[in-house]
Amino acid sequence: MLVVMQSHATEEEVRAVCARIEALGFRAHPIPGAARTAIGITGNSGAMDIGSLESMPGVAECIQVSKPYKLVSRDAKPENTVVRVPAPCGDVTFGGQAIAIIAGPCAIETREQALTIAEQVRHAGARLFRGGAFKPRTSPYSFQGLGLAGLEILAEVRDRFGMGIVTEAVDNESLDLVEEHADVIQIGARNMQNFSLLKRAGRARKPVLLKRGLSATLDEFLMAAEYILSEGNYNVILCERGVRTFTDHTRNTLDLSVIPAVQRLSHLPIIVDPSHGTGRRNKVLPLSRAAVAVGADGIIAEVHHDPDRALSDGPQSILPGEFARLVEEVRAIASVLGRTVG
Amino acid sequence: MLVVMQSHATEEEVRAVCARIEALGFRAHPIPGAARTAIGITGNSGAMDIGSLESMPGVAECIQVSKPYKLVSRDAKPENTVVRVPAPCGDVTFGGQAIAIIAGPCAIETREQALTIAEQVRHAGARLFRGGAFKPRTSPYSFQGLGLAGLEILAEVRDRFGMGIVTEAVDNESLDLVEEHADVIQIGARNMQNFSLLKRAGRARKPVLLKRGLSATLDEFLMAAEYILSEGNYNVILCERGVRTFTDHTRNTLDLSVIPAVQRLSHLPIIVDPSHGTGRRNKVLPLSRAAVAVGADGIIAEVHHDPDRALSDGPQSILPGEFARLVEEVRAIASVLGRTVG
Amino acid sequence: MLVVMQSHATEEEVRAVCARIEALGFRAHPIPGAARTAIGITGNSGAMDIGSLESMPGVAECIQVSKPYKLVSRDAKPENTVVRVPAPCGDVTFGGQAIAIIAGPCAIETREQALTIAEQVRHAGARLFRGGAFKPRTSPYSFQGLGLAGLEILAEVRDRFGMGIVTEAVDNESLDLVEEHADVIQIGARNMQNFSLLKRAGRARKPVLLKRGLSATLDEFLMAAEYILSEGNYNVILCERGVRTFTDHTRNTLDLSVIPAVQRLSHLPIIVDPSHGTGRRNKVLPLSRAAVAVGADGIIAEVHHDPDRALSDGPQSILPGEFARLVEEVRAIASVLGRTVG
Amino acid sequence: MLVVMQSHATEEEVRAVCARIEALGFRAHPIPGAARTAIGITGNSGAMDIGSLESMPGVAECIQVSKPYKLVSRDAKPENTVVRVPAPCGDVTFGGQAIAIIAGPCAIETREQALTIAEQVRHAGARLFRGGAFKPRTSPYSFQGLGLAGLEILAEVRDRFGMGIVTEAVDNESLDLVEEHADVIQIGARNMQNFSLLKRAGRARKPVLLKRGLSATLDEFLMAAEYILSEGNYNVILCERGVRTFTDHTRNTLDLSVIPAVQRLSHLPIIVDPSHGTGRRNKVLPLSRAAVAVGADGIIAEVHHDPDRALSDGPQSILPGEFARLVEEVRAIASVLGRTVG
Repeated sequence: MLVVMQSHATEEEVRAVCARIEALGFRAHPIPGAARTAIGITGNSGAMDIGSLESMPGVAECIQVSKPYKLVSRDAKPENTVVRVPAPCGDVTFGGQAIAIIAGPCAIETREQALTIAEQVRHAGARLFRGGAFKPRTSPYSFQGLGLAGLEILAEVRDRFGMGIVTEAVDNESLDLVEEHADVIQIGARNMQNFSLLKRAGRARKPVLLKRGLSATLDEFLMAAEYILSEGNYNVILCERGVRTFTDHTRNTLDLSVIPAVQRLSHLPIIVDPSHGTGRRNKVLPLSRAAVAVGADGIIAEVHHDPDRALSDGPQSILPGEFARLVEEVRAIASVLGRTVG
Repeated sequence: MLVVMQSHATEEEVRAVCARIEALGFRAHPIPGAARTAIGITGNSGAMDIGSLESMPGVAECIQVSKPYKLVSRDAKPENTVVRVPAPCGDVTFGGQAIAIIAGPCAIETREQALTIAEQVRHAGARLFRGGAFKPRTSPYSFQGLGLAGLEILAEVRDRFGMGIVTEAVDNESLDLVEEHADVIQIGARNMQNFSLLKRAGRARKPVLLKRGLSATLDEFLMAAEYILSEGNYNVILCERGVRTFTDHTRNTLDLSVIPAVQRLSHLPIIVDPSHGTGRRNKVLPLSRAAVAVGADGIIAEVHHDPDRALSDGPQSILPGEFARLVEEVRAIASVLGRTVG
Repeated sequence: MLVVMQSHATEEEVRAVCARIEALGFRAHPIPGAARTAIGITGNSGAMDIGSLESMPGVAECIQVSKPYKLVSRDAKPENTVVRVPAPCGDVTFGGQAIAIIAGPCAIETREQALTIAEQVRHAGARLFRGGAFKPRTSPYSFQGLGLAGLEILAEVRDRFGMGIVTEAVDNESLDLVEEHADVIQIGARNMQNFSLLKRAGRARKPVLLKRGLSATLDEFLMAAEYILSEGNYNVILCERGVRTFTDHTRNTLDLSVIPAVQRLSHLPIIVDPSHGTGRRNKVLPLSRAAVAVGADGIIAEVHHDPDRALSDGPQSILPGEFARLVEEVRAIASVLGRTVG
Repeated sequence: MLVVMQSHATEEEVRAVCARIEALGFRAHPIPGAARTAIGITGNSGAMDIGSLESMPGVAECIQVSKPYKLVSRDAKPENTVVRVPAPCGDVTFGGQAIAIIAGPCAIETREQALTIAEQVRHAGARLFRGGAFKPRTSPYSFQGLGLAGLEILAEVRDRFGMGIVTEAVDNESLDLVEEHADVIQIGARNMQNFSLLKRAGRARKPVLLKRGLSATLDEFLMAAEYILSEGNYNVILCERGVRTFTDHTRNTLDLSVIPAVQRLSHLPIIVDPSHGTGRRNKVLPLSRAAVAVGADGIIAEVHHDPDRALSDGPQSILPGEFARLVEEVRAIASVLGRTVG
């Protein structure tokens, strides 16, 4: 359920409604908006004495929510959430007028590899750097990432190039480390319904980049985000990265229709990963253009200076030169929609 | 197998090679290209005496084709096929620099309905009109189309507004009629592997718009086109219209990655149907932008002036005003790619 | 809509209700049942004056049908339809207590091939012989079947071994021929929504074996059958043959749960094709056992005496000896369910 | 890579080969078989000096493994693995001649609920009890399980009815508790690629029941098991529970063809969950019969005495009376295959 406050409601009135909700044994989530505050109510629901809330000072109305998600819903917050990621070279925002670009290798392999790629993508305009230190791999015998050493290399990338760092956490232990060293905590597709990890991310003080699962419906995707918000972390960036279908000409099928679908239902920003979404280097550029044209709030792309020797996902990594062209093309498409890149 | 002729080969040399192929019991398909002619060989394959062909005057090389498609392949014809549709108000091309737009209702319901919509989409810039006279419907009790009367209404649309006509054939009998009355023969998704109909379309003298089946792989899609080309009709326009997956936020999942995939393998033009591809009015506009951004050669959109009363597919039809906006946005995206609309 | 007659209603009363329905501009389908007659009403529906029908003599009730299918529904006919196929060596029934077995090669290749296989599957207990004379093939360059010559070979199989003949029609022309020469007309998966062909099959005087499309939902499958019944042919046998999914360990994913699902909603018999359903010889036997265990009314299996040289579908054809074992195992499973094989 | 020892190789020779492998920087996994011992080699592979191993005393051959899985492969261990679960009322085996049955509610809700259901399924013949104490739920607001209190109720079920306990772990913390209190550690479908959890399960001293992910290929499923074995726990029971497809008549599509596919490639036992596999109470019985007919090594079924009030998965839970019938029917099918139940 949602309690919508009047536009002139005082902070004290909001606090009083929250206190009543908590007294009833539920949890209150005040969500300040541009014009008014809404208060999401979560807990082991069932019947609630709505009357007692509706008659409190400052309350405009109580809305019974039919969809299973509450805090991620536009009912709770009509205007877009803008997630701000502080990077030394300037804050990057997701969900505002600007389109954000995240670039870097699939995995951090060596200090040299990371610095080489970082320099080039920074030069092409990227202000956020991606690179896995903890890698979820299908095979236990594949390269599993450098772990803490990888995070330290990423910290050096931040220091040298002023870029913000986006990197994946795969369990509670790695999330502790990622939260400490990185600027955005990534939750991968295979962990989209690792509810224990989502709850931990909901208690983190850094934004979370949540990737859609390989066979996740729109509702399941939004409910995974709801897990994070329900623990108090409202800075969630969604990411479409392709779903699994019968097709075989790409590794996954990039579902661009989910972008406008999410934007109707939720206030959260959503970006696109054309690298995993296609699994083919020669598809990354056209699908990046399409992603921006459909209305995505950003792109996350895998870039490697020597993809044939990459320890993971080489076939879908683009070269730094291709990435520079990607930024140019995305910028041109963005301007048609009245948006900028950066 | 393909025989690639030397760039300076004479017509006589090409004819001689064809004659030798036919004498061996196979069928020869000479495919003139900008720089050279290739000759596709089809028939109940197996072993062939390549040697005798390779030594003939004017032959550059013989290529054993590993992919199952031959005539639709870029190996057979490296440059794009440009399909030209003559419309009274000016020819429309698919596969060239310009992006083609086809618009109109799902089904022709009445003369008034067709003329009303035609006037509005023509005014917004469309030069090709779509509208079904023969409708493949899931239920035998649903509106099945006006048949010949619908074709006569379409002929009136051509006369009054100068538009070219695109309409579907569902069996050999309706194909005869469509070939006589329309400018482009559409083969629907449910008939993509109706091989008897494909062969008949291959003997037609009008271009064919071939829609991808609901669960067709890229190879199956191209092989369906190969059926048409193998009968002698090389004017085939492919159309991505969404595939069936587990997702439920759209009626189908529009697979935009198939556009660059087709363009790598085949010389045939490919367009996108965002109406069937999403099944949701509010998704047509963003996915049309994305389709052009990814590189499609055209858009086919359902437009209805009164979608709530449409006899079929109302929920995915856009209003004429929305269509005018679609043309504007598509034009802006196209210009970024150095293309025009019309 | 359905009109359910009283159990003691006379034939004259049934005729009077049908006449009234036709006078109202609809089509009446009287469906005699064991205890009572139901009358299906089809036509371009919308509002109907139910009152005038409900008050007629002999009418028990009028049921508004919510599901899109009418004639195939158990609402129209609560008891199972038993389709009887007359074979010289004894009638074969689908939908009764006995489980029917259809066996033979994918395609009729030569007279010798057909007779060799027929003798062996007849010896193992099969009384219905399958074999394609008209083959829908993905490639125009693959073997397309012997056509009429194939049908004549099948006629010889019937004469020599007393078996009933099941073979596929792919268009109206081949359906005319198949109706003349065979005992069951097969409509293949790729033609499940070839509505023109379904209507023609609905006017045939032979039973129809309708295969589920590669991506057909349960509703679409039943609606395809509805097309056939709505034209007057009530002898339809449904066939599950696997659907297309992301999995790659089998050619298709055999959806055995559709068997009890169909049996709840429809009175029509349903059989299973484990050969196309798996595409792997070594899976045919276990999945045949499972099909009978789940409640299927029959099995259709591809058998070839020399699968390595088969012109189509060799990898999924079992050897005659394996087929004999299949019959034995299916018989043993059937007896657990109180059913027989034959 | 696999080193296959001669059948008469001594333990000392096996130890020497293992030592050489470890000295080369790899990990050795001796896998004793009925006739011979195989030694799996894992580690960050690449080139290996095979020669030095092949010439050691007692070595029969070195096999380069092409498939990505090693320890789960039949190449490593040709005969079936039989996983033994000790239950007070008698050991239960998976992968031998007997078919194992696991039954109980989706979630442990109260002590009374658990004891009521346990008594009834024990009476019907089940010797293993399932019931979730930690529940992975799509919504953060749904019942999340009783946690430790649930495990204590399960311990009481073991004490009172002599049943072995199967229950799910969702993260490292719950796995510690489950390992302490239960007899089989279940890893759910949504955690099939939670590699951190798989590694922890690989270090547990209890058997692991690993469910197939919603969109897992056969290779991914076996690789998830490989994670567990690679950490030293060889007692893994696989479980097919339905995959996600376009179909809508069941919650998931039960892929019974994966049973014989797994059995060809791997020595591990595999069971079927017809409750999640269909999501429909009325499909559980026929699909259980089919599962045993296709060759599954067991069934895990959800049973609830009051499914309409179940806190989770009520619509797919069968009643105790239906479960008793399931056991009878499964026993009859099993006897056809020369197997027993228990």
